[in-house]
Amino acid sequence: MPKLDFDVITLGHGSGGLLTNKLLDSGVFDLLQNDLLDKRHDGATLSLQGATAFTTDSFVISPIFFPGGNIGELAVNGTVNDLAMCGAIPQYLSLSFIIEEGLRMEDFWKILVSIKFACEAAGVQVVTGDTKVVERGKGDQIFINTTGVGRLHERARIGTDRIRPGDQIIVSDQLATHGIAIMSVRKGLEFETSIESDTRPLHRPVRMLLDNFGPEIHLLRDPTRGGVATVLSEIARDTRLGIDIRQKDIPVAEQVSGACEILGLDPLYVANEGIFLTVADASVADRVVDQLRQDPACRHAAVIGEVVEAHPRQVVLTSGIGGKRVVNMLTGEQLPRIC
Amino acid sequence: MPKLDFDVITLGHGSGGLLTNKLLDSGVFDLLQNDLLDKRHDGATLSLQGATAFTTDSFVISPIFFPGGNIGELAVNGTVNDLAMCGAIPQYLSLSFIIEEGLRMEDFWKILVSIKFACEAAGVQVVTGDTKVVERGKGDQIFINTTGVGRLHERARIGTDRIRPGDQIIVSDQLATHGIAIMSVRKGLEFETSIESDTRPLHRPVRMLLDNFGPEIHLLRDPTRGGVATVLSEIARDTRLGIDIRQKDIPVAEQVSGACEILGLDPLYVANEGIFLTVADASVADRVVDQLRQDPACRHAAVIGEVVEAHPRQVVLTSGIGGKRVVNMLTGEQLPRIC
Repeated sequence: MPKLDFDVITLGHGSGGLLTNKLLDSGVFDLLQNDLLDKRHDGATLSLQGATAFTTDSFVISPIFFPGGNIGELAVNGTVNDLAMCGAIPQYLSLSFIIEEGLRMEDFWKILVSIKFACEAAGVQVVTGDTKVVERGKGDQIFINTTGVGRLHERARIGTDRIRPGDQIIVSDQLATHGIAIMSVRKGLEFETSIESDTRPLHRPVRMLLDNFGPEIHLLRDPTRGGVATVLSEIARDTRLGIDIRQKDIPVAEQVSGACEILGLDPLYVANEGIFLTVADASVADRVVDQLRQDPACRHAAVIGEVVEAHPRQVVLTSGIGGKRVVNMLTGEQLPRIC
Repeated sequence: MPKLDFDVITLGHGSGGLLTNKLLDSGVFDLLQNDLLDKRHDGATLSLQGATAFTTDSFVISPIFFPGGNIGELAVNGTVNDLAMCGAIPQYLSLSFIIEEGLRMEDFWKILVSIKFACEAAGVQVVTGDTKVVERGKGDQIFINTTGVGRLHERARIGTDRIRPGDQIIVSDQLATHGIAIMSVRKGLEFETSIESDTRPLHRPVRMLLDNFGPEIHLLRDPTRGGVATVLSEIARDTRLGIDIRQKDIPVAEQVSGACEILGLDPLYVANEGIFLTVADASVADRVVDQLRQDPACRHAAVIGEVVEAHPRQVVLTSGIGGKRVVNMLTGEQLPRIC
């Protein structure tokens, strides 16, 4: 961290005047340095070609530091992943802070460093930004908006309109890790080993799928808030088709599964940050899983179900002992401020 | 406003599940409807050509309803104007809400309607979005992030590196109106007629300047937080040139000027939302002013000073009675949460 003559962020740092410049010049620009950011204008000028994906997310997670990550890398990975889910190669991010006065500069710096490393890992650049400061009690330490643009993969043909009965539903890794990591720290639960958030960029496995299978990949979605159940319910609603899933095939880490039982939660509804769902043509499903498993972020990839003509607009789960039940969207709020 | 079975926004509306869908389907998607938004994916896919400007801003203004506008139109106009200042034609916006639980649905709806009309006025589309809800006391009614993209005007050659000694500094309209409107409502000041914020889109006069004068327009900046003084100080710093301005030529409405005196404020430091600064080649300056004055948003356009080789990195003001003083950046925080 650079040597500064202030320890905490004050309202003046959001004034747009001298203190804002001082804050940014204290090392923020140096840390995130790139040719586009350096112009210090009101915005950046990009050279984009062809179809471009554009997506936004505001991050309000509490606590801002959690097992396995912090709000900074989460904000980068979250938008990188939304771009990937559009079938795009992530390229550029905007970065906007809403800071509560009193945030320790040390914490802000840690978050910035995480942002830097997450950007490097995902191959994206922060090219424009904004900093606002609100009074104590009018925010909660820090909220971050990231908005991203990325070039669409030329073989991507993603959309619910491309889904057909018989398509296979594949999950890229174990469910519910992020939500349980956050909940365990909020509730003060302790496990034999700490459960860590799965926040990570997913652009690499997605790109590999699009390179190899192109239009056979019909849909990509990351089941964050609302979990796998909500995303599948949305797909069933939008396609007017049914979805069957098999509990025995859904990968959940033993410790996470145990925590879910203690907390009375269904892993299907718990938020994720480092997994995605693929709806793929049946002809490639097994090869998709094999390929995914070669990526360290997708070692537990599995086919968990399929799209069917029966029970339109409904998701039906076959339980471990063979019973069937309808899976609806998340109702109410299971765990506020999970991302 | 649509008929709803809820009056206020709750944490569940930010869950990503059923209630989030219900909130969005209550009329939000219908109101902002366009082909790109309708896909309801994690992001939108845009067809962009050539150089593209990209800019972000989070809006935390308090109060959210103020004389002359509200946070919704401010959020649209603010990003539209930042795109215009890059020399771009605004095209698409992302829209991200951070809502404090308890926000009245009626207020949210008013804000949405303002967003819709502001988008229509500026010719932009909201193509992707996000909604988060935080607990009571962890936010302040509503914060809005807008991030925008727009095609660079083919005749735009904007940059501090294009500024030369002799360039003229032009302001598009009267100063300090937005800041004084907000301050008067916060302090409960009353004037003969209400002072209203100047929030408005500036894409049209900017486009007209670029159409007519192209590369003779060297820089465009909107003096929001920190006011005209801070923007001019940044230009002097970045160009390593001096700037002379003349107080007698700086347009300020009489009532705003009176309010500034009462409040002990210098209009040069007060925030604006509906004006911009142009640094133009001396050969076109008078014609720039003539053209601007034909636009209803720029009736008081005026040359207020020029770029000089003397006193590098310093802005010097000649007062009404001929005295000279150095104008620095805004120090501290004059008025928090002005935008």
